[in-house]
Amino acid sequence: MAENSPEPLFETVALIGIGLIGSSLARVMRERGLARRIVISTRSSATLRRAQELALGDAFEADAAEAVRGADLVIVSVPVGASGDVAKAIAPGLKPGATLTDVGSTKRSVINQMAPHVPAGVHFIPGHPIAGTEHSGPDAGFATLFDGRWCILTPLPEANAAAVTKLTAFWQACGSKVDVMDPDHHDTVLAITSHLPHIIAYNIVGTADDLATDTKSEVIKFSASGFRDFTRLAASDPVMWRDVCLHNRDAILDMLSRFSEDLTALRRAIRRGEGDTLHDLFTRTRAIRRSIIDAGQDTAAPDFGRLTTPKP
Amino acid sequence: MAENSPEPLFETVALIGIGLIGSSLARVMRERGLARRIVISTRSSATLRRAQELALGDAFEADAAEAVRGADLVIVSVPVGASGDVAKAIAPGLKPGATLTDVGSTKRSVINQMAPHVPAGVHFIPGHPIAGTEHSGPDAGFATLFDGRWCILTPLPEANAAAVTKLTAFWQACGSKVDVMDPDHHDTVLAITSHLPHIIAYNIVGTADDLATDTKSEVIKFSASGFRDFTRLAASDPVMWRDVCLHNRDAILDMLSRFSEDLTALRRAIRRGEGDTLHDLFTRTRAIRRSIIDAGQDTAAPDFGRLTTPKP
Repeated sequence: MAENSPEPLFETVALIGIGLIGSSLARVMRERGLARRIVISTRSSATLRRAQELALGDAFEADAAEAVRGADLVIVSVPVGASGDVAKAIAPGLKPGATLTDVGSTKRSVINQMAPHVPAGVHFIPGHPIAGTEHSGPDAGFATLFDGRWCILTPLPEANAAAVTKLTAFWQACGSKVDVMDPDHHDTVLAITSHLPHIIAYNIVGTADDLATDTKSEVIKFSASGFRDFTRLAASDPVMWRDVCLHNRDAILDMLSRFSEDLTALRRAIRRGEGDTLHDLFTRTRAIRRSIIDAGQDTAAPDFGRLTTPKP
Repeated sequence: MAENSPEPLFETVALIGIGLIGSSLARVMRERGLARRIVISTRSSATLRRAQELALGDAFEADAAEAVRGADLVIVSVPVGASGDVAKAIAPGLKPGATLTDVGSTKRSVINQMAPHVPAGVHFIPGHPIAGTEHSGPDAGFATLFDGRWCILTPLPEANAAAVTKLTAFWQACGSKVDVMDPDHHDTVLAITSHLPHIIAYNIVGTADDLATDTKSEVIKFSASGFRDFTRLAASDPVMWRDVCLHNRDAILDMLSRFSEDLTALRRAIRRGEGDTLHDLFTRTRAIRRSIIDAGQDTAAPDFGRLTTPKP
């Protein structure tokens, strides 16, 4: 426990799933003394062993129900498609008064999957930290991942206010700013801010991957001209993103329809040589970049301040 | 002149256009002593004044034909749609034996626009440095922009070999690796590596910009979940990119067709809930990211090593 935090927020925290998000939580909790005891469980025995080698927790349990037994806070950090199975598995071990949360990228589906299994007296408060990198697994996590990033909580109408307040304090102690939102609204907003960008990135990299081998090697060689930006998102965890697509389908398909309509109009403007239409679009998109930088959500340094590109 | 370079590669270099690329060339030439004298000309008098304030050259000429008079190397760094007008304007001033090159993102169109104006005895060698940031103008340039980046030359069949060799040495002295390519092949490769990514980025940011105002503010707030990556490319110079779209139309429309077909297939997979199809695509795209990092064309640091995201 860190010396600057004499009383931890929670006595025992159980982490179910120990990938990028789970292992970052383990590290920040340890570093900032947010829990007296951290218990870790994950489905893969190899990953659990790796978490133990990294000393990410105080106890390591193959059995998820055992892991959550006695925990005051249980954080499920698994691909969203596994949420229902995990909830079912841990339900017998959950103690009355415990808080159960998750970090999934879709919220309505997670609620539908988990809520039916949550025992009475357990406070289920779905959540989603807007933080991550393109890397995955327990080695990829780091304690400062959540610093300055938003975490969205989507409590159900009947949620216990004190439990929401305490979970809010927990995420703030992890470095996050916390926002509360309706789950369906979350799914709409994330469809455009996160799901559509990832799907488009996967798609464009797939298009390039289908090119003839000699052209493909040139795509890699000259990727600094724009393409490489997309490959980062397209290197994200495939299981996580498969599940996001399957579990936020309607909002994603709606955003894909808008995107495709706009792209059709843009193609037509290119085909017809409508320079003014192109110039107008390419001008108004600049304003959004400025807003994002002003909001502290990206660096103003050119080229993301890439290490490979020396700065002025 | 830098002390480590007793003899400059060129006596007098004229820069026509002094934006990100032109001003980076001015800075690197000065820093590495690649020219005895740098003459700068650009259409906008405000930009020319700014270049003078920044002391980017030895002489500043409003008249482009005057600027190139006596120059051994002339580098045209303007939006590709202006190439023909610039070639026509400078033609009377070009001296026999001079090398004329450009930095445009499309090559066939630039050749078609410029070649008819090039006087006999002037060596016209089109070029394209694969380097840049999302910033533009004379303040945005920096001397190390070309370090480790490719520069593609697309000499015509009748090109003077000695002039090509000397221009190659110039770009190498600027820090670049040089590749020689057929102009049409260049336009095909850049359509996928650069033009398509920029157009897709502009399009997705435009789609977000069309959302209702309250949703849009949330898009900015939660942009770190993926969206912000696209806003960088979509903040690039609108005139430059309008001209790229107008001047590499056929190759761009071909790549947009491929992209759209693939996206239609991906939408169908999402609609039908075909998890295996999604997982397969999301897995094979990872390999391209690895190849790009292995080729030294991007940083392996998570999140591009963004300054706002502390590293592990």
